[in-house]
Amino acid sequence: MSDKKSSPAFGKEEELAINTIRILAAEMVQKANSGHPGMPMGFASVAHVLWSRFLKFSPEHPFWPGRDRFILSCGHGSALQYALLHLAGYDLDMEELKQFRQLGSRTAGHPEYGLLPGVETTTGPLGQGFANTVGMAAAQQYIRAVMPSDEGEFDPFDHRFYVVVSDGDLQEGISYEAAALAGLWKLGNIVALYDANNISIDGTIDLTWSENPVQRFEACGWHVQEVLDGHDPSQIYDAIEKARQETEKPSIIVFHTHIGFGSPNKQDSSSSHGAPLGVEEIELTKKALGWDYPEFTVPEETYAIYAEAADRGREEHKTWLENISVWLKARPERKQLWQELIEGDVPIDLNSIQPEFETGSKMATRGASGIALNQFAEKLISMIGGCADLNGSVKTDIKKTEIFSAESYGGRNIRFGVREHTMGSIAVGMCLYANLRAFTGTFLVFSDYMRPTIRTAALMKLPVIFVFSHDSIGVGEDGPTHQPIEHVAALRAIPGVNVYRPGDANEMFHAWRNALETTDQPSVIISTRQGLPVLDRSKYAPADLAGKGAYILKDSNGVPDLIFMASGSEVSLIVEAQKRLEEEKIKVRVVSMPSWELFREQSEEYKNSVLPSSVKSRLAVEAGIAQGWHEWIGDEGKFIGMNSFGESAPGAVLFEKFGFTVDNVVETAKSLIDKK
Amino acid sequence: MSDKKSSPAFGKEEELAINTIRILAAEMVQKANSGHPGMPMGFASVAHVLWSRFLKFSPEHPFWPGRDRFILSCGHGSALQYALLHLAGYDLDMEELKQFRQLGSRTAGHPEYGLLPGVETTTGPLGQGFANTVGMAAAQQYIRAVMPSDEGEFDPFDHRFYVVVSDGDLQEGISYEAAALAGLWKLGNIVALYDANNISIDGTIDLTWSENPVQRFEACGWHVQEVLDGHDPSQIYDAIEKARQETEKPSIIVFHTHIGFGSPNKQDSSSSHGAPLGVEEIELTKKALGWDYPEFTVPEETYAIYAEAADRGREEHKTWLENISVWLKARPERKQLWQELIEGDVPIDLNSIQPEFETGSKMATRGASGIALNQFAEKLISMIGGCADLNGSVKTDIKKTEIFSAESYGGRNIRFGVREHTMGSIAVGMCLYANLRAFTGTFLVFSDYMRPTIRTAALMKLPVIFVFSHDSIGVGEDGPTHQPIEHVAALRAIPGVNVYRPGDANEMFHAWRNALETTDQPSVIISTRQGLPVLDRSKYAPADLAGKGAYILKDSNGVPDLIFMASGSEVSLIVEAQKRLEEEKIKVRVVSMPSWELFREQSEEYKNSVLPSSVKSRLAVEAGIAQGWHEWIGDEGKFIGMNSFGESAPGAVLFEKFGFTVDNVVETAKSLIDKK
Repeated sequence: MSDKKSSPAFGKEEELAINTIRILAAEMVQKANSGHPGMPMGFASVAHVLWSRFLKFSPEHPFWPGRDRFILSCGHGSALQYALLHLAGYDLDMEELKQFRQLGSRTAGHPEYGLLPGVETTTGPLGQGFANTVGMAAAQQYIRAVMPSDEGEFDPFDHRFYVVVSDGDLQEGISYEAAALAGLWKLGNIVALYDANNISIDGTIDLTWSENPVQRFEACGWHVQEVLDGHDPSQIYDAIEKARQETEKPSIIVFHTHIGFGSPNKQDSSSSHGAPLGVEEIELTKKALGWDYPEFTVPEETYAIYAEAADRGREEHKTWLENISVWLKARPERKQLWQELIEGDVPIDLNSIQPEFETGSKMATRGASGIALNQFAEKLISMIGGCADLNGSVKTDIKKTEIFSAESYGGRNIRFGVREHTMGSIAVGMCLYANLRAFTGTFLVFSDYMRPTIRTAALMKLPVIFVFSHDSIGVGEDGPTHQPIEHVAALRAIPGVNVYRPGDANEMFHAWRNALETTDQPSVIISTRQGLPVLDRSKYAPADLAGKGAYILKDSNGVPDLIFMASGSEVSLIVEAQKRLEEEKIKVRVVSMPSWELFREQSEEYKNSVLPSSVKSRLAVEAGIAQGWHEWIGDEGKFIGMNSFGESAPGAVLFEKFGFTVDNVVETAKSLIDKK
Repeated sequence: MSDKKSSPAFGKEEELAINTIRILAAEMVQKANSGHPGMPMGFASVAHVLWSRFLKFSPEHPFWPGRDRFILSCGHGSALQYALLHLAGYDLDMEELKQFRQLGSRTAGHPEYGLLPGVETTTGPLGQGFANTVGMAAAQQYIRAVMPSDEGEFDPFDHRFYVVVSDGDLQEGISYEAAALAGLWKLGNIVALYDANNISIDGTIDLTWSENPVQRFEACGWHVQEVLDGHDPSQIYDAIEKARQETEKPSIIVFHTHIGFGSPNKQDSSSSHGAPLGVEEIELTKKALGWDYPEFTVPEETYAIYAEAADRGREEHKTWLENISVWLKARPERKQLWQELIEGDVPIDLNSIQPEFETGSKMATRGASGIALNQFAEKLISMIGGCADLNGSVKTDIKKTEIFSAESYGGRNIRFGVREHTMGSIAVGMCLYANLRAFTGTFLVFSDYMRPTIRTAALMKLPVIFVFSHDSIGVGEDGPTHQPIEHVAALRAIPGVNVYRPGDANEMFHAWRNALETTDQPSVIISTRQGLPVLDRSKYAPADLAGKGAYILKDSNGVPDLIFMASGSEVSLIVEAQKRLEEEKIKVRVVSMPSWELFREQSEEYKNSVLPSSVKSRLAVEAGIAQGWHEWIGDEGKFIGMNSFGESAPGAVLFEKFGFTVDNVVETAKSLIDKK
């Protein structure tokens, strides 16, 4: 790297600027009577040096691809970020700082992606922001690698990822998982700034931690520095500069800081962590810091420092813009890649890709998922993803590409190891960085390990695709620890997530297409371990109706006596049961319900045409719990499902044991009609 | 420690015994046509040395409190444990080894606690067994500390915890969290045996890992050894012996092994990881290992080695029994502690403890939870637990006791740090070790981080108490990342868990009592951040009816026009709405539903008396998603709840915004009646 900077002299204005951040944060929290003042006050020195001297940003262009990313993994310190965004000239005026944590304000309790420019990811649940950063940095390397480039040429992606982590972030398991992958992948553009303030909500860190952070990160292949005085601008500057020069390894700097810096009675105490300092203590703090301005004031000298930093960024942005247009023209193939990866234009009509499964054959929907994934991935370079050490089972590999690694950043198959939680957060980070269509894979039962991250993806409206196979007791011999029972319901519970459990190979294909067409929410695609019949669509309704969430797969001749409903592997069961009942002149409508969420989005008219309120005899079959099904089956309906954990035995044996048989469906159906 | 052992000579019979384990495991998997042969084959050498030379066990007394614990964290290697239990003389005959992974067999796909003696915890989801071990070892120290003892006296708890971990275990975030706490707590009785076979399901470990395990564990304060040849009995022996001598720090031994050892074509390959070797390859393996016995044969020499080990254990058990009766008599106060902690007798009538909340006051149910917890903990020394760095908020501290630490193992307040997942697994381990009533605490939104472990507790029918506060948008300013929406539903979804969301302080008290009376399943206790009225029970039904899961809190005069239902903070809302409607002569029954699970257990008669099928106008209010409520409100009912994420604003503002107001409840109720 040629951009090495020599340490400037830090004068009194710097201390004033740092105190501005501290006081602003304390005042915001005080006015809201809610929030976390200690972290911003303790970390203001580091944040100030970073933002005023290093961070590459242009406040009017918060989505400039060439910007540095600033991620506050310890989102409870949000007042710090808001103060910085205000100083740096982002679209965030003083009035909004005063509206911290109030209804409708963009200065939310924790930084929320999409609400405020300059917030690169939603944080709050500790550890996730750090893992998102690893995903962003991996995405940068991926895009750089797949974009054709020449030695020594302009690099549109020459920027870094600065992520602030707290003690709490580094206690969470996800942080170790993410650190292991960042080290493995040699993501040298990450500079983690660790606010080692030695205080957590419940007291001093030694109550809960005796770990040596230097040794820990070195064990994972990181470049580690320790700054004993995290309030000395020169030390801070030198350490950040050194971390920037290290490009082969991710860097972390352990800054020893004082939480609540400046507060005479609350510094270095958990009392400054999660509650306002109090009016009196703020006064004492101002006195101690020599601060003599009215409330919510930024001294001119401070604005001046940040104006200079912003101007520098605006210049860099301008130069970048000039370079990028030359660069894009230099190689014509760049343009389309750029449009797909950066601007998010889908390069083809997704409807031009069609499924080609052999009717009448048997195929596990995980197999169909692997095929569909590959059909689309062949056309979409934006698709990248992988599995938590179950790739062979979940079928997430993209053919004809390599494994993503430090030696091959252009590889599209990610091997996450047995690290489900960080896998999810890395995929989130990839979607945040650019218009990548990142996907993950593991067994459905392990979706539990990923819930915090699926939720965050939903909150941010990111189109991550979460693939889960082995979706029921059909898992078989591996037994109850590996057999999902409650997981489909529990995933349907998360707001803003589309959950698909397709009934055969063709429905699976359409689930993938829908997921790829969706750009504003995550999708969960659920598949079977066991083979399922590929339904003959000349006899059954076309599979693209799956896009409506629920549809009449096979109707009765005339008004149905009852309606069958199912998702996934149980669809073929109700199809068979219907045949048997038809022989006995019982009129059954068969409804396939791959996605409740999509069905809810349909018109009332459509919904009523599929499930007319006049037909009260309804039977739903799903190899999971009943929760939620009463909405569809109604007061007079019945449900065949699970109400206990599974067992270890071959899958077919378990289906028999737990009542997922044509006989049982037929019998239960008859009992419904008899009752009537 | 005075029990240092010198390394014996390992002869040919040892190799034969090791091969016996290998072949048994390969044959079990082959017969089942399902399973994981590679790990047992690769780790047989270490397992054999441990079981034949060190492990303290008496096969006829699998619950002997003085036994060593053997935990197979990598549960997919179950065939190894079953082979060992068979050889060691446990109640597990050869026929059952042949029934590996079949319906009704105790030799389940992954080891299942409660199914088979000698299985100390259910494993399979990686990392959890390791964290359970930390919980067990902490429980040992706790019980040892609270039992009065004299210097140099007999120690009933003089035993160790041997836990086998795989690469996959150590990739999971939970393993780092657990290692950090084991190091902090100086749990010197843990000996972790790491099967570093360098292979995971998807290939070699270098694809997913570059971590230095020695450095990593040293960073956490562990004693670390590396054994380069994990198949050399003498090296194995010496390392285990050295680990046993280290009692100040937890120990881990990195054993470099060859997965699928002996298989000419599958050793050191992921092809031996998760699938049968194949009949032909088994033949080749037998040849390579010089194995010449019929299928499922154990040579006499091998049985003889294990008979000797078992005899040694039986002797130790006999001596222990003699000592324990003397020891219990030596100090009369020991008897009662022993009965509570080891035998599980509750020392008092829990009904003798009564709530004492001031009617008419306002109190957050988290506050009431803290009071109830303390009322019971004062009488129950078996109660120990804590929080993931939110103790002040969730109110989980037991007063008049210390923080659990290496310096104070008798402390009953555990500070877990921000490590929710391992917190849950440690509580599980504590309940496994003895009859402790372990509890955990964090915000409800972070229950997502703990789901895998809540599920495992349910699967094992362990009475862990999971406390979650801040249960809705009532969280307020912290915003959507901290506001649970789907979590109550998602917890109700897990089979075998009792979920309580009490409506006021008195219901909270009864939730705690019910949870403590329950011995065969986990409880989830959910509380508010915000204050709620303490209902005047002279005007409303007694709170102990909460034990029925749902009850008529206030009935209408005559047949109700409609039924109100709510849980938690929304109970006081429907109480107020009922008053208003009563003024308008509308007859409303108010039903409080703190626990769906308990309600489902009641008689049909009781259930119908609370929710008579004749009353179809029903309105449920809960500050969460609708999922599941249709079961109770029926086709004609309505639900007031959430169908999106929350926002950052004061809690009261959000309740207003999202329609949780008396006005809205009254209006919605009227619309129901009008419809009628």
